[in-house]
Amino acid sequence: MARAHWGCCPWLVLLCACAWGHPKPADLGGQDVRNCSTNPPYLPVTVVNTTVSLTALRQQMQTQNLSAYIIPDTDAHMNEYIGQHDERRAWITGFTGSAGTAVVTMKKAAVWTDSRYWTQAERQMDCNWELHKEVGTTPIVTWLLTEIPAGGCVGFDPFLLSIDTWESYNLALQGSNRQLVSITTNLVDLVWGSERPPVPNQPIYALQEAFTGSTWQEKVSGVRSQMQKHQKAPTAVLLSALEETAWLFNLRASDIPYNPFFYSYTLLTDSSIRLFANKSRFSSEILSYLNSSCTGPMCVQIEDYSQVRDSIQAYALGDVRIWIGTSYTMYGIYEVIPKEKLVTDTYSPVMMTKAVKNSKEQALLKASHVRDAVAVIRYLVWLEKNVPKGTVDEFSGAELVDKFRGGTGLEAQTPEVLPPRHSLPLLSPTKELNRKLSSDEMYLLDSGGQYWDGTTDITRTVHWGTPSAFQKEAYTRVLIGNIDLSRLIFPAATSGRMVEAFARRALWDAGLNYGHGTGHGIGNFLCVHEWPVGFQSNNIAMAKGMFTSIEPGYYKDGEFGIRLEDVALVVEAKTKYPGSYLTFEVVSFVPYDRNLIDVSLLSPEHLQYLNRYYQTIREKVGPELQRRQLLEEFKWLQQHTEPLAARAPDTASWASMLVVSTLAILIWSV
Amino acid sequence: MARAHWGCCPWLVLLCACAWGHPKPADLGGQDVRNCSTNPPYLPVTVVNTTVSLTALRQQMQTQNLSAYIIPDTDAHMNEYIGQHDERRAWITGFTGSAGTAVVTMKKAAVWTDSRYWTQAERQMDCNWELHKEVGTTPIVTWLLTEIPAGGCVGFDPFLLSIDTWESYNLALQGSNRQLVSITTNLVDLVWGSERPPVPNQPIYALQEAFTGSTWQEKVSGVRSQMQKHQKAPTAVLLSALEETAWLFNLRASDIPYNPFFYSYTLLTDSSIRLFANKSRFSSEILSYLNSSCTGPMCVQIEDYSQVRDSIQAYALGDVRIWIGTSYTMYGIYEVIPKEKLVTDTYSPVMMTKAVKNSKEQALLKASHVRDAVAVIRYLVWLEKNVPKGTVDEFSGAELVDKFRGGTGLEAQTPEVLPPRHSLPLLSPTKELNRKLSSDEMYLLDSGGQYWDGTTDITRTVHWGTPSAFQKEAYTRVLIGNIDLSRLIFPAATSGRMVEAFARRALWDAGLNYGHGTGHGIGNFLCVHEWPVGFQSNNIAMAKGMFTSIEPGYYKDGEFGIRLEDVALVVEAKTKYPGSYLTFEVVSFVPYDRNLIDVSLLSPEHLQYLNRYYQTIREKVGPELQRRQLLEEFKWLQQHTEPLAARAPDTASWASMLVVSTLAILIWSV
Repeated sequence: MARAHWGCCPWLVLLCACAWGHPKPADLGGQDVRNCSTNPPYLPVTVVNTTVSLTALRQQMQTQNLSAYIIPDTDAHMNEYIGQHDERRAWITGFTGSAGTAVVTMKKAAVWTDSRYWTQAERQMDCNWELHKEVGTTPIVTWLLTEIPAGGCVGFDPFLLSIDTWESYNLALQGSNRQLVSITTNLVDLVWGSERPPVPNQPIYALQEAFTGSTWQEKVSGVRSQMQKHQKAPTAVLLSALEETAWLFNLRASDIPYNPFFYSYTLLTDSSIRLFANKSRFSSEILSYLNSSCTGPMCVQIEDYSQVRDSIQAYALGDVRIWIGTSYTMYGIYEVIPKEKLVTDTYSPVMMTKAVKNSKEQALLKASHVRDAVAVIRYLVWLEKNVPKGTVDEFSGAELVDKFRGGTGLEAQTPEVLPPRHSLPLLSPTKELNRKLSSDEMYLLDSGGQYWDGTTDITRTVHWGTPSAFQKEAYTRVLIGNIDLSRLIFPAATSGRMVEAFARRALWDAGLNYGHGTGHGIGNFLCVHEWPVGFQSNNIAMAKGMFTSIEPGYYKDGEFGIRLEDVALVVEAKTKYPGSYLTFEVVSFVPYDRNLIDVSLLSPEHLQYLNRYYQTIREKVGPELQRRQLLEEFKWLQQHTEPLAARAPDTASWASMLVVSTLAILIWSV
Repeated sequence: MARAHWGCCPWLVLLCACAWGHPKPADLGGQDVRNCSTNPPYLPVTVVNTTVSLTALRQQMQTQNLSAYIIPDTDAHMNEYIGQHDERRAWITGFTGSAGTAVVTMKKAAVWTDSRYWTQAERQMDCNWELHKEVGTTPIVTWLLTEIPAGGCVGFDPFLLSIDTWESYNLALQGSNRQLVSITTNLVDLVWGSERPPVPNQPIYALQEAFTGSTWQEKVSGVRSQMQKHQKAPTAVLLSALEETAWLFNLRASDIPYNPFFYSYTLLTDSSIRLFANKSRFSSEILSYLNSSCTGPMCVQIEDYSQVRDSIQAYALGDVRIWIGTSYTMYGIYEVIPKEKLVTDTYSPVMMTKAVKNSKEQALLKASHVRDAVAVIRYLVWLEKNVPKGTVDEFSGAELVDKFRGGTGLEAQTPEVLPPRHSLPLLSPTKELNRKLSSDEMYLLDSGGQYWDGTTDITRTVHWGTPSAFQKEAYTRVLIGNIDLSRLIFPAATSGRMVEAFARRALWDAGLNYGHGTGHGIGNFLCVHEWPVGFQSNNIAMAKGMFTSIEPGYYKDGEFGIRLEDVALVVEAKTKYPGSYLTFEVVSFVPYDRNLIDVSLLSPEHLQYLNRYYQTIREKVGPELQRRQLLEEFKWLQQHTEPLAARAPDTASWASMLVVSTLAILIWSV
C-alpha cells in the first residue's frame, strides 16, 4: 500500500483531488452506505464488524471502573501521519479516515468527524457506532454528560491527548461530577493484541554532511546557549516531536509514512544528552557518530524508548526545570513533571530554531526545488501530449511524476541510500482512482518529493481543452491571490495570520473563497507541513530565512478544483523609506496555465510581477533542462513563460481615450 | 479640570496629538526631568515628594507580612478611564500617565510604563522611584525575583487584577518560591486616607425611550433566553463592566470621566435581578422604573455596591452556575466562586449582544454622526479662516469644536438634561498646550461627542499651507489604507485581525507603518472604545449590525502626524456569486483634505470609491447644513466634495496613447 512507504508526499492525500468530476457524496445512493434504520440493518461490504472487539474493550473498561473511554486519532508525538500500529481508532471503529475521535461507553459507541469523512464513515462503520457530524471536545463532552451517570469516570491514554486537548476536556467536564482518568496502558492495544502491526524497526541512519545545515554538536550547543540565556534558567529541554530529534541529531529513518522520522524523545540537559529510542536500530557507526560510548555533556546516551516517562519523572525529582513546547508534548509526559519544575512555551527551542533555515539550508532547499520543477514540467509536457489520446488514468499519471522525481539527478551523488519517492495525486483506494483523464476537465496536481537536500511541495492546475469563463475567472482570482500575497511587503515579525487574507481578497470580491489554510512551513528532508511556520493562528511570526507555501484555491463542489501552490523564502524587502520589512521570494519554478488566465482581470502590477517571475523560471530551470537535454521540455518552458500582455482596452474606454487624445492633438496643432 | 467632566471625548487623550512640531522628548534637556545621579539629585518642580506616603505604605506591608505590593493602573471594572479616587498609582508615585504599574518592596519602588510616558514619568517622579521602560508582567516578575527573598509574599488588591493578569503573575511566579497574596483592603487607600477624593454620587437617570434600542425588560429576557439555551445551563450571569449594567437597564450617570456610567455590578439570575450600586442615587421615579419594590423575576433588587463579593460568595453556595465574561471580571470576584460553579466565556452575553446594534440603534448612531459631521465641518471652516491670522491656539480651537458639538440641534428635543460635551484635542496640561496653530504645519483633530443617540469619533488631518511631497505621499497612503479596508468584501464571521492589514498595505509598500490599532467598536451613548468589536486579536468576529472605527495613520516623530478615522457599520455585501459576505458602510461624513491628496497614487478603484463617498456626504450633510442656514459651510462642503479626477498620464504614456489613437482615427477615416 502506498501509505506503507515513506519518502512519498502524503500531503497529497489531504489536499489534492486531481481531476474533478467525481460524483458528489450525496449521489452515492443507499447501496454504498449503511442503513441502521431497517431491520435487519443494511451494511455494505466495506463495513467492518466491531461487535467482538467492542465487547472486549468494554470488559477492559469494566476492569478499570470506567463509564467511558476516549480513543483519539493521534499518536504519542502529534504526528500528522501515523503508523499502522497507532491506528487504534481505525481498528476499533472500522472507519479509516485520518481525522475523527471515538468514544465508547458501556452501552454506546460514537465517532465525531468532519464533513470530509461523513460518507466514508457511513461506508465503513457497522451499526454499533453512532456518527456525530461535529468536531472538537465540546460536542463530545455534551454527549458524554447525557450518556454516563454522575460520578462516572472517563478514561483516556495520556500519551494520546496533548496538553491542550486534555485541558479542553478537563475544562468542559469541570463541575459536571464526571472525572477524567489517565490510564497509561492503552485499552484498545490490550484488545488488539497480537493482531496489532509491529512497531517499525528499520535502521536509523545519519545524513551526509553535504545535506545538513550544521553538525549535531553545533545544534546541541545552540540549544544549550538558549537555555542559559532563558530568564527561568531551564536545566533541560524535552523534545517530544519526532522531527525535533531527527533534526537535532541529523538522523533519519522511515517509521512514519512519508516523513523520515523514527520513534524517539530527547532530554537535552545542561550536562547530558539522553536519546530515547530502540537501541538495536543504531549501527556501531551511528553509535560512534553520536559519541554514545562516553558520558560527558557532548555524548549521546541512548535509553529505551519505553523508559521515557519513568526517566523524566526520575529526573524531575532533582533541582531541575524542564523546558517543553506545549504544542507537541502529550499529557502523559506533562503529568509526571511538577508544575513548578516546568518551563513552558508553545514551541520548543528546537522547533523555533529549525523554523529559520541558515544560508546552507536555504541553498539546499532552493536547489531541490529547481530539480523538482524539472520533474513537474516533464510531467506536464507528457500529460499535454498524452491526455488527448484518452489513455492516461490518474494512477498511471501519478506514477510517472514519481518516476520523473526519481530522475532529477541527485541520485548520482548518493545512489546507495536514496529513499523511494512517490507522488500520488489521490491515494484513497476508490474505484474512481483509475478514471481516465480528458481534455474537457481541470486537472489539479498537488505533489512533492523528499530529496536529500529538501522537501518540495507544489500545486498546479491545468486544463487542456476549452475552460468555461467561470473556470478562467476563478483560476485568475486564485492566481491574483497567490501574487498579492507573494509580492506583499510587510514589517518584520508580522504573523502570517495577519496577512493571509491578501491571498483571498480577489476571490472574496466576487463572493468566492476556499476552506483550507493558505500555507505551511516545509523542511530540509523533514516534514512537508513543517510547523510552526505558516499563516494560521498558531503559527509564529514571519522571519527572514523561513520557508512557507502560499496556496490559495477555489473548489466548485463536484465540478472542479483549483489550487496554485508555491513555496517561498522569507527575505528582506527593499522599501523606498528605510525600515525592517520582509517579503517573499518564490522558489517553486513551474509556470501557471496560460489557458486558464483571464488577463483582463490582472492589474499592470500583477502582469509585471508575473512576467518577472516567468523570467526567473527561464533563468533557473532553462539551463537545467538544457543540461539534461530535455529539449522538448525546454521549448515548452519558453512557450509557457512568454511575457503576458495587458488586455486591449474595452470599447468604452477606447472611445474616451480617443476623445481625450483628439483634443490633445487639436491643442498641439494650435 | 477637563477630565472631571464626562460627556467629553477622552480618546483624544490617547490617540490625538493635534498639530505636530513639539520638541522631541530627547530635546527637553535636564532642566525638565529629574536627575537622580547627582548629589543632591536634581528634581524639577513638577516632581511629587513621595517619601512620606511610601514609608506609610511599607508600614502597612509589614503589618501584612509582605515583601512586595503591586499597584496596578486600573479600577475594579477594567474601565479605560478611571475616576480620581481610583488613581492610586498616580497618587503613590506622582506619575499621572494613564498606563503604568508600580511595585513597592521594603527597599525599592519602581514603575513600568511604555514609551509614551517615559519623559512624563521622569518629570513627575522623585528619586524614590525607578523607571522601567518595559510593560507586561514578565519584566515585573523578573525584577521581583531579584529584589525579594525566597519565601517572600507579593501582595495585591484582587479587585485591581483581572483574571488574566492574575494568571499571568501566577504563572510567572510558579516554582519561584514567592507567593501571590490577595488582600481585599487596598493598602494604598489606607495610606491615602481622608485625602482620597470621594466616590461620585450624582443621580443615576434613565434614558428616554426614543434613545434606546429595547426596554430593559426586553434585554433581561434576551439574556435569560441565552442562559436557557446554553449547554451548561448557567443559573446566573454576573456583569462586572459598568457599561454592561448601564446598557442592560438603559441607565446612565457620570461617575467615569467621558463615559456615562455608574459604579455597579449586576447578578442576573433565572429568577431575580440584583443590581449592586449606591441605593441613595436612585430617585423614586427610577426605583419605580426598575420595579424595585417587588421581588419577582422582573423586579430589580438594589443591593449595596460594597456587598457584591459577599453576595456572590453566598449565592455560589447554592446549586448554581455563574456565567462570567473573563475579560471584565476581576480576580476579587473570581476567587470567591468555586471553579466548578463557573461558566466562562471571554465576553459576557451582554457584551456580545450589545456589540450588534439593532435597526433602531443603527439609525440612532447614524443620525448622531450626521450632526457630528456638521460640528466638525463648522470647525474646519472656522480654522481655515482663522489659522492664517495667527490667533488660534490648540486649546481655544478645541473649545470651539466642543461648542459646535453642543449646537447640533439634538438639545432642542431634550434641553433639560443634555450632558455637557467637550472635545479637547490634547488634554495634557503642558506648556505646549496653548501653542498657536500655523498654516505651515499639519493639524490632526481626533474628536467626538456623546449625544443621546450615539457616541461619535472622527479624525481628520489638514494642512492649510504647502505640504511637502512626503507629507502628501504619507497622507495619501493612509487614505488608501482607509479606503482599502472600508471597501473590502469579506466572508461573514471574519475576525477584524484577519483583515486589518489592508489598512496598512499601502504604507508597508513604502516602508511606513503606524503603531496603534486600526479600529474599535463604538456605543450608543456609551463607550467610545466599545469592546469587543474591532481589529485586534481579542476582538470577536465581524457581524452585520456592528459599528467599528477604521483609522490608519502615520507619525513622523517630532514632525507631523496623520490619522484618518471614520466610523463604519458592518453591512451585507452584494457579490457577483451568491454567498454570505460583509463589507463596511462608512457613517462619518467629513471630506478628506484635498490639499494633502496625491491623486497620482490612487488607482481608478480608489478614485471611484472616494467620489462615491463624497456624493454620499453631499446627500447626507448638505441638507442639514442648509436647514441650519450654514451657507458658508455648505459652500465649503460643495468645494471639498468635488469629484477628484485621475491624474493626467505621464508624458511617455501620453505619447504612446497619441500614437494609438491617431492610428485609430486614421482607421476611422478609411
